[in-house]
Amino acid sequence: MSGEGEFGYIARRLAPLAKDTPGALGLLDDAAILSVPDGFELVITADTLVEGRHFLPGTDAALVARKALRANLSDLAAKGARPFGYLACVTWPVNAPESLKEGFADGLGIDQAEFALSLLGGDTTASDGPWTISITALGHVERGRAVLRSGAKAGDVLVVTGTIGDAGLGLQCARGGLDLPAADRDYLLDRLHLPMPRLALREALLAHAHASADISDGLIADAGHIARASGLALEIDLDQLPLSLAAARWLEMQDDKAAARAFLASAGDDYELAIAMPETAVNAFASACAAEGVKATRLGRFASRAGVTVVHDGKPVKIRSAGFTHF
Amino acid sequence: MSGEGEFGYIARRLAPLAKDTPGALGLLDDAAILSVPDGFELVITADTLVEGRHFLPGTDAALVARKALRANLSDLAAKGARPFGYLACVTWPVNAPESLKEGFADGLGIDQAEFALSLLGGDTTASDGPWTISITALGHVERGRAVLRSGAKAGDVLVVTGTIGDAGLGLQCARGGLDLPAADRDYLLDRLHLPMPRLALREALLAHAHASADISDGLIADAGHIARASGLALEIDLDQLPLSLAAARWLEMQDDKAAARAFLASAGDDYELAIAMPETAVNAFASACAAEGVKATRLGRFASRAGVTVVHDGKPVKIRSAGFTHF
Repeated sequence: MSGEGEFGYIARRLAPLAKDTPGALGLLDDAAILSVPDGFELVITADTLVEGRHFLPGTDAALVARKALRANLSDLAAKGARPFGYLACVTWPVNAPESLKEGFADGLGIDQAEFALSLLGGDTTASDGPWTISITALGHVERGRAVLRSGAKAGDVLVVTGTIGDAGLGLQCARGGLDLPAADRDYLLDRLHLPMPRLALREALLAHAHASADISDGLIADAGHIARASGLALEIDLDQLPLSLAAARWLEMQDDKAAARAFLASAGDDYELAIAMPETAVNAFASACAAEGVKATRLGRFASRAGVTVVHDGKPVKIRSAGFTHF
Repeated sequence: MSGEGEFGYIARRLAPLAKDTPGALGLLDDAAILSVPDGFELVITADTLVEGRHFLPGTDAALVARKALRANLSDLAAKGARPFGYLACVTWPVNAPESLKEGFADGLGIDQAEFALSLLGGDTTASDGPWTISITALGHVERGRAVLRSGAKAGDVLVVTGTIGDAGLGLQCARGGLDLPAADRDYLLDRLHLPMPRLALREALLAHAHASADISDGLIADAGHIARASGLALEIDLDQLPLSLAAARWLEMQDDKAAARAFLASAGDDYELAIAMPETAVNAFASACAAEGVKATRLGRFASRAGVTVVHDGKPVKIRSAGFTHF
């Protein structure tokens, strides 16, 4: 810690992140005071990132801050909410270098500007454990319009945004376990470190989705959460899995294609959306996504009964672990 | 961790704490969806407790949960807000005994019932560091009525609720550094472990206070925050410091009374309120407090200019550290 102490750090680096929201009271009061506009509901979520568990030790501190924010924004995106602010509880490692704290504030500042957010409060402390960041993010959604996990109907199709499995491959790159061309490795690392919460798809989601979840644990796990919350069965077709060029090139090198696709569909940290919608809505939704430069891919169907089935090449695939277990 | 895993723990122990708030969605969705009643604002605060820093290792897990909640509720009480819910981000120590996790959920349940709260969300994870708990608490206050730190006026008096310094003495007891009668020790430990957020004084606070802060860092530090936020000077008279019988007996044994009172007024974790109000309001406020079984004591005055002065026996006292530095 520097000689300025925590109050100094908060005043110099964090209070400027709160200056555009009067109710944040300059981070100088006991709490923030917020209004929710008439006709809107508040959407609130919280996630913790721990060094060595959710990100590798030595990861650039600004990227850690941005990923901590984005993991939460992704939850808000999945509900169709528009984020406006967050609280940050940070436990620094004792003797954290100044660069860690500076980089963290830098990262918050960059993504605040990108996503039109304000810091609203929080706490900073230190421990002799790993760096730990808990973010609580807040958004608004038109009253009664939030897209829940539980709204899927039998006959709905499963649609996912973007490409699946990149962050899982990126993690293998970061740990030195994949020998890929440099451009592919850079792309996959970027997908791991800087996921893009699908906030730009808000209007399309509100217009077309029956149910939605963000893909943080893995596609099969999170789509399965929708099925369970909706009391439905789900069949996922791995042949339709949307892949980046980098992931497709990796897949080419794998002997067991079914196992490789199952790995991609079970890897965490994609922060894409898994969505249940009527079959008739898919084209309109995909067009709206395309206008934002995002692919939308249909790869499954919800049905009455229960249970998640994964197929490849027309045959069921046995899934060892549907979701990502943090390292 | 038990064989049930975190999903099992959440379903068995945490989801029941969310069942009375439909918008918590059974803790099964990506976020909670909340309404703020017409005419009210949202008040939100977050605090982190770290084992070994904010509570001693080995402290009963239910008491840790309750103190984590109460520290946040105290912030809401200071703003005149009525709390309704919270999110909990918990990082367990790896290999935490079952009793820790069970005790934690027990403690949340006890205080939820006491303060009419609902669990709304959060996250659980684990690390090889100390047990770390970040709570984000939410409340409502009538629009425009929140009591800020910045509202004190020159001529206002400083009033504090309850007694001051008990938790600081309790911490010394917990660390084995005080030789006191068993009844006094038990009382002081209870004040350390189970502070009482002054939510019962909400109506009186809204009716009479110009400014308010909760006393978490220490009376001198937190009353000083009001003075600074309000652009005023403050004189605190240590002769008026409200003391419990246990603290008064401890004080009797101290040689340097000024230093001893300064210690009590600088010790943290009291979770009483420091309030600026017009002199004419003190009697009505004190009566309202008495009706709730809480003492209210006038012990200072705000004035124009700046700076905090502490006096004892009519003479200025030099304060080494105005607030509690966590151990």
